Amino acid sequence: MAPSDKIHDTALPIRERMEALIRQKQQEITTGIAELDTVGFHTDSWERGEHGGGGQSMVLQNGTTFEKGGVNISVVHGTLPAAAVDRMKADHRNLKSSSADGSLKFFACGLSLVIHPHNPHAPTVHANYRYFETHDPETDELQSWWFGGGCDLTPSYLYDEDAKHFHQTHKDALDKYDTLLYPKWKKWCDEYFFIKHRNETRGVGGIFFDDYDELPADDIVRLVESCFDAFLPAYVPIVNRRKDTEFTPEQKNWQQIRRGRYVEFNLVLDRGTQFGLKTPGSRIESILMSLPATASWVYDHHPEEGSEEDRLLKVLANPVDWL
Amino acid sequence: MAPSDKIHDTALPIRERMEALIRQKQQEITTGIAELDTVGFHTDSWERGEHGGGGQSMVLQNGTTFEKGGVNISVVHGTLPAAAVDRMKADHRNLKSSSADGSLKFFACGLSLVIHPHNPHAPTVHANYRYFETHDPETDELQSWWFGGGCDLTPSYLYDEDAKHFHQTHKDALDKYDTLLYPKWKKWCDEYFFIKHRNETRGVGGIFFDDYDELPADDIVRLVESCFDAFLPAYVPIVNRRKDTEFTPEQKNWQQIRRGRYVEFNLVLDRGTQFGLKTPGSRIESILMSLPATASWVYDHHPEEGSEEDRLLKVLANPVDWL
Repeated sequence: MAPSDKIHDTALPIRERMEALIRQKQQEITTGIAELDTVGFHTDSWERGEHGGGGQSMVLQNGTTFEKGGVNISVVHGTLPAAAVDRMKADHRNLKSSSADGSLKFFACGLSLVIHPHNPHAPTVHANYRYFETHDPETDELQSWWFGGGCDLTPSYLYDEDAKHFHQTHKDALDKYDTLLYPKWKKWCDEYFFIKHRNETRGVGGIFFDDYDELPADDIVRLVESCFDAFLPAYVPIVNRRKDTEFTPEQKNWQQIRRGRYVEFNLVLDRGTQFGLKTPGSRIESILMSLPATASWVYDHHPEEGSEEDRLLKVLANPVDWL
Repeated sequence: MAPSDKIHDTALPIRERMEALIRQKQQEITTGIAELDTVGFHTDSWERGEHGGGGQSMVLQNGTTFEKGGVNISVVHGTLPAAAVDRMKADHRNLKSSSADGSLKFFACGLSLVIHPHNPHAPTVHANYRYFETHDPETDELQSWWFGGGCDLTPSYLYDEDAKHFHQTHKDALDKYDTLLYPKWKKWCDEYFFIKHRNETRGVGGIFFDDYDELPADDIVRLVESCFDAFLPAYVPIVNRRKDTEFTPEQKNWQQIRRGRYVEFNLVLDRGTQFGLKTPGSRIESILMSLPATASWVYDHHPEEGSEEDRLLKVLANPVDWL
């Protein structure tokens, strides 16, 4: 059966449909991104060995448009020890363990991407959509499941029209299912991508959700597909508008400083990265694929009052309702 | 009284003597480092406001020899809430709280430095020496105290003679007090600066110690002074040997990748950085002064078997006894 048929086959378990979805979207997204560049994606497949499962990383480096971009899928399963189950309970209200030793069997699959263009006027983008389920380790009975994900934009220079377009495209993708989702998930995105020690958001946001099981799983697969399908229309026109904009060395330096903040968020705060770095059998290169090719830290840097750089910081300190 | 007189005045409390020591060493070290460059240090003083205390950061950026270097001192005091006391107990066996709410009064002072040269053949260096004491919040009685610190070297290209010289100079500084310290603290350094998710040490080590109260405090002040005095003789000759070595763009790229690993250690694993990022009233710029001006992440990078880059990785995976 072709992946596209599996996605909508309601006779199949959700995990198989979600896996088919991420496999198809990895191909579509890398094809769409590669059209903006003269360099293509390099593909690596990897397995978790004794830990169960594996994935496929597709990475583009040193292109003409993109400095670095990675689109990674993973499909993993195994046993979560009691300590990991306890940690996850904070974010997942339905998670429970019925086994004597507190462990749980799990299945997880997802697609994660980060794209860093060269041009400081073209923003970085991140997206991630994932599905998680847990099973009783003795009976193998399904115990809990949820979807999570989101997509957010991180410009070094702020073009209001880009932020509006990005948010509008994602709002449209959600409104088809529930018009209450965009306002809720837009706010959640601003809250999640907040760099506490800098008192600023990572970028101009987008959507973010986790622990989502409030519709039948079949409906959520379609909703996630709708979000996936918003990705290229949300991002590609922005890159096309900005990738050839002239820039100064000072603007390139500012982009490098903003990339430093991106690294700070990902290494210090991002839950997925933290989880991956602590999980035995993780493929570190796929987890840290999100880090930019280049970044910079300048001591006590403050942009000039009233400059474009300063305007960005003010927006990052007080997230804007773009729509 | 001049700082140098205060350091050895046994009539003064240890906290005042240690504060005098770090103030004097900040001046000596920045003077010694600035002699290798055409650019000097910029000095910022800062206060913690309502949180108690402050510090002085001295930073050199964009020099001829050094890309970025910071030498920071801080002298802070205040109240540790019960949760922070509990977290610290794991590393400090004598720490206890006798107050009803589990809180503790504390005093801490220390000097922390990181120097990143431009030339990929010249190594990065880090040092930190600190003193901590806790007091009963009701009676103000001294409850526990300890010293901690260390100094370690992070080359991008490995020169055995540099590693040996660096270790020998620190061994000599410790052997004057106790010949058992160097072997113990050298091993501790390799263990502490281990990047778990990469299965490699950050660099070729040096010395590291924490929770140290096994000699009278007066003796430890002298021992820490001896370590401080080892810093310039351990590092300056290495920079002098390497700062004008010719290098290729490929060697510069390799340095950038190694700087990425430095960032990973500091943001993901370093206890001091983690503590600082979570502590209200911290001066973020002083904490993150340790990050390099430039760093790079290349997906799935592996040096050629048998190359100099490969030799470094093999040493980082299996720490060497240099002496």
